[in-house]
Amino acid sequence: MPRTPTGHWPCSVARSLDLLGDPWVLLILREAFYGSRRFDQFVDHLGINRATLSRRLHDLQEHGLLSTRPLADHAGRQEYLLTDMGRDTLPVLLAIMRWGDTWLAEDGPPVEVIDPETGERIQPLVVDANTGEPIPSSITVKPLTAAAMADRDRRAQRGS
Amino acid sequence: MPRTPTGHWPCSVARSLDLLGDPWVLLILREAFYGSRRFDQFVDHLGINRATLSRRLHDLQEHGLLSTRPLADHAGRQEYLLTDMGRDTLPVLLAIMRWGDTWLAEDGPPVEVIDPETGERIQPLVVDANTGEPIPSSITVKPLTAAAMADRDRRAQRGS
Repeated sequence: MPRTPTGHWPCSVARSLDLLGDPWVLLILREAFYGSRRFDQFVDHLGINRATLSRRLHDLQEHGLLSTRPLADHAGRQEYLLTDMGRDTLPVLLAIMRWGDTWLAEDGPPVEVIDPETGERIQPLVVDANTGEPIPSSITVKPLTAAAMADRDRRAQRGS
Repeated sequence: MPRTPTGHWPCSVARSLDLLGDPWVLLILREAFYGSRRFDQFVDHLGINRATLSRRLHDLQEHGLLSTRPLADHAGRQEYLLTDMGRDTLPVLLAIMRWGDTWLAEDGPPVEVIDPETGERIQPLVVDANTGEPIPSSITVKPLTAAAMADRDRRAQRGS
């Protein structure tokens, strides 16, 4: 069944999920953070089908999260590198990891995340940048663009 | 094509993505945070096919992220409520929103997130809980369980 495109919705969650709402995409990004660069490394570490990997790497390049560079010693082969846009998904991955560590790790978290500069353990936490406090457990939203206002009004008219 | 199950991997990202690596699941959770509770509200707000919604709501209940409660005034109908486990996905959603606001919002962020208690805007940021500092842009990981150590050793043997 084809995916419903949500890239045009007036919502940054929906837009992002057009690309990030896919387990392989996020696992490929995870692998890139763990140091994988070559096609065969992604295949080895993820057990991913080569055709699936090829499509996902293509999508990630097309959307600007990965760039490629020819490998000096292997004619025709290339390596895949995180761009700034790709590297900026690390907070998403760590928020997902923290949720899994809390709710899906009966034997404790499988891995801990280390800051390579300091060697210290990192404990990811989503806070409000304005206060430094953890985010509340419920939110409301306020539309800022015309499309988002129209979306809110459409909801109000339906009374739901 | 069937999804590759990753719920048993020694990685909390992979485990979480078995459920959260789906755009509809995350958009249904978003809707629940925005206040939707009834089946028809999710259909109206997401434009989601009823059969797809039904399956996703079932999965979310089965995995413990939503609970149901009969609606007092509509015989046989029920409402869907976030459990603690479901509510704890808010940091994931806000990390995704922040990424979309940064990279996919040419006209500026479509919505802002408000703390309903204070009425103030929330700016989600993933920090290291130990230091309060934003997480670094690169990480390494250290295995903590036998399965995660085996995974690391398997990688080392392959030399990749």
